[in-house]
Amino acid sequence: MENFVFYNPTKVYFGREQLCHLGEEALKFGKKVLLVYGGGSIKKTGLYDRVIAELKKADLQIFELAGVEPNPRHTTVNKGAKICKENGIDVVLAVGGGSVIDSAKTIAITAKYDGDDCWDLISRKAVVDENLPIMSVLTLSATGSEMDVGAVISNTELNKKWTIFGPDLRCKVSFLDPTATYSVSAYQTACGAVDIMSHIFDNAYFSNKDEMDMLLRIQEEVLKTVVKFAPVALEKPDDYDARANLMWASSWALNGFLYDGLSQDAICHRFEHELSAFYDITHGHGLAIIIPRWLRYILNEQTAPRIKRFGVNVFGVDEKLSLIEGAEKALDCLEEFFFDTLGLKSKLSDLGIDESNLATMAKNACGRLGQINGFTVLSIEDTEKIYRMCL
Amino acid sequence: MENFVFYNPTKVYFGREQLCHLGEEALKFGKKVLLVYGGGSIKKTGLYDRVIAELKKADLQIFELAGVEPNPRHTTVNKGAKICKENGIDVVLAVGGGSVIDSAKTIAITAKYDGDDCWDLISRKAVVDENLPIMSVLTLSATGSEMDVGAVISNTELNKKWTIFGPDLRCKVSFLDPTATYSVSAYQTACGAVDIMSHIFDNAYFSNKDEMDMLLRIQEEVLKTVVKFAPVALEKPDDYDARANLMWASSWALNGFLYDGLSQDAICHRFEHELSAFYDITHGHGLAIIIPRWLRYILNEQTAPRIKRFGVNVFGVDEKLSLIEGAEKALDCLEEFFFDTLGLKSKLSDLGIDESNLATMAKNACGRLGQINGFTVLSIEDTEKIYRMCL
Repeated sequence: MENFVFYNPTKVYFGREQLCHLGEEALKFGKKVLLVYGGGSIKKTGLYDRVIAELKKADLQIFELAGVEPNPRHTTVNKGAKICKENGIDVVLAVGGGSVIDSAKTIAITAKYDGDDCWDLISRKAVVDENLPIMSVLTLSATGSEMDVGAVISNTELNKKWTIFGPDLRCKVSFLDPTATYSVSAYQTACGAVDIMSHIFDNAYFSNKDEMDMLLRIQEEVLKTVVKFAPVALEKPDDYDARANLMWASSWALNGFLYDGLSQDAICHRFEHELSAFYDITHGHGLAIIIPRWLRYILNEQTAPRIKRFGVNVFGVDEKLSLIEGAEKALDCLEEFFFDTLGLKSKLSDLGIDESNLATMAKNACGRLGQINGFTVLSIEDTEKIYRMCL
Repeated sequence: MENFVFYNPTKVYFGREQLCHLGEEALKFGKKVLLVYGGGSIKKTGLYDRVIAELKKADLQIFELAGVEPNPRHTTVNKGAKICKENGIDVVLAVGGGSVIDSAKTIAITAKYDGDDCWDLISRKAVVDENLPIMSVLTLSATGSEMDVGAVISNTELNKKWTIFGPDLRCKVSFLDPTATYSVSAYQTACGAVDIMSHIFDNAYFSNKDEMDMLLRIQEEVLKTVVKFAPVALEKPDDYDARANLMWASSWALNGFLYDGLSQDAICHRFEHELSAFYDITHGHGLAIIIPRWLRYILNEQTAPRIKRFGVNVFGVDEKLSLIEGAEKALDCLEEFFFDTLGLKSKLSDLGIDESNLATMAKNACGRLGQINGFTVLSIEDTEKIYRMCL
């Protein structure tokens, strides 16, 4: 069992009508707020008006960056950082899902960089060791960005989707109101559910290392929470219990508790970030297509015990099946969940992706090491084969 | 489902040999450390020498308060607060179990009080809204004080054992090294296991309220962790996995995550604090005697579903049993675990407690309301009857 440090100082207001605390919390950091949001759905739902009203009530000065993309662009981040520098912004407030929060985080650190381009920081060409404080009002249960230390930004010029980490890139305060996710579409709800599960798979439920038993068991309960409540939210988008369970599951899947002391391999994310870097698809959908194929490809006597255990404990697969049969059944259940219950299309070709970039993506996914380590070792050739299984 | 705020900024170093970070962490708060510890077991194990060496390496000035009692006394706290005031202490460092950490917390707040007696603060006669920073090096998996906001102090003159809470009474940094619990006796290991479980029962697994499903499931996994690993630690005191699982379970049972959004009724603790206030017994042992009797007393058609669920999910009781039969079987399993597996004596009379104070204790336990609310409503008469069942 590995040593670890657990430290997660994000303050979370969870539940209905907690936004009344937004102004007082923002004021702790100063008077000038940069409000960051996406394509405008928060204007349709009324959340934008509510946020503005709360900020005004606290006499805060509001600046805005709208139009953050679903796979957020480094160019948009640069615009936000410029606003911060020109206006002496004190705190960056994200109102949206993971893309918006990730952008706000990267804006917050780029605001302290004396260059203009956040990609210098993301690509480690330059380093900055401080950032503006970040707050979030969450509208999508998926990425866990509301309590974690990372942000993922896309550079469409280079076809790169890379992650930046920083100890202070955790939100200082996050507002999680399950009713703010009532308007999330069935498709985005499904993709979010897969994203939550993938954070547990990647950090690293699927591993052969010596782990703390309690954490594995709790990971399974969070997985079961998603399996139970995502279909309820699809059926009845305004089911408070379902939305609340999914929302809190999204935060805990990636805030440290469930994986501190376990390995953090990010295997599924390595595969998927190439896909959405090249094709700008929805992250959770890419993950859904890859995960079962990856697990089928690596299924053998060494990996079967954990895959079978997953099936038994999360999907109720019969414990009496043999290791390989049980593991295969587990993957059948996972595919059924992703592609039938959640209704996601199961092939890359359904998303308009052909084989043309697979070789490049496989090479990129394997990075400098030329392989993907973790549950098993995957060569570039293995990686490309797995992509091909997804076509 | 209730709204809540989750905020737990304790930094935890978990694992072997993490004490090398002790000096750097303490230095963040200043140069003068008050080291608080108990009866001297840390001198036998070598932990005292290690802590002193790390503090000296960082050039910290060390003051000491030794001799904290198992049910820590307000008079001992007052001595510690005096040392803080006279010497301008910057940070209070507890090295021990819950009693030592609770004393350190109460010292840290009394150090900011212009009166001499911490009981003024504990009894709410006076209020102080700040305290010195607190750090801990944990040696016993039980109370969860290493990550929570409360401290329990005994006043033997008044036969009171009361709790003080404060937002800054959380440890800033806690060091959790499972090997530091290898030397814990079988009896204290058993009592600690019961204490961990009681924090889940009290906050409030045993409830009829509308709760977040994910949290109930995770509570059950933490309970199962204790049921699985406490016997292993009894059998093999230096089993790292067992000690590690118990240690992390103790912190998470009482750090907020498992119960924020659930009710916090503290029913078992109300009963037990009277026992240890009057008789100075070990908290976890008192809890073990009370919990199954309390649950038997309140078992009816309304309470049976949760009690049976507990049996099914934690002890593998047959789901096909009727509600009442399943709940009774659950309590049989719980008693078997406490009194056979953990080897704790099952009656108050085994601890030298007779009926002489039961009526007073029942009245005190019911407090100003004259009743105990929560899973059911218990009158003073009910409460006394439950105590009598324990004799």
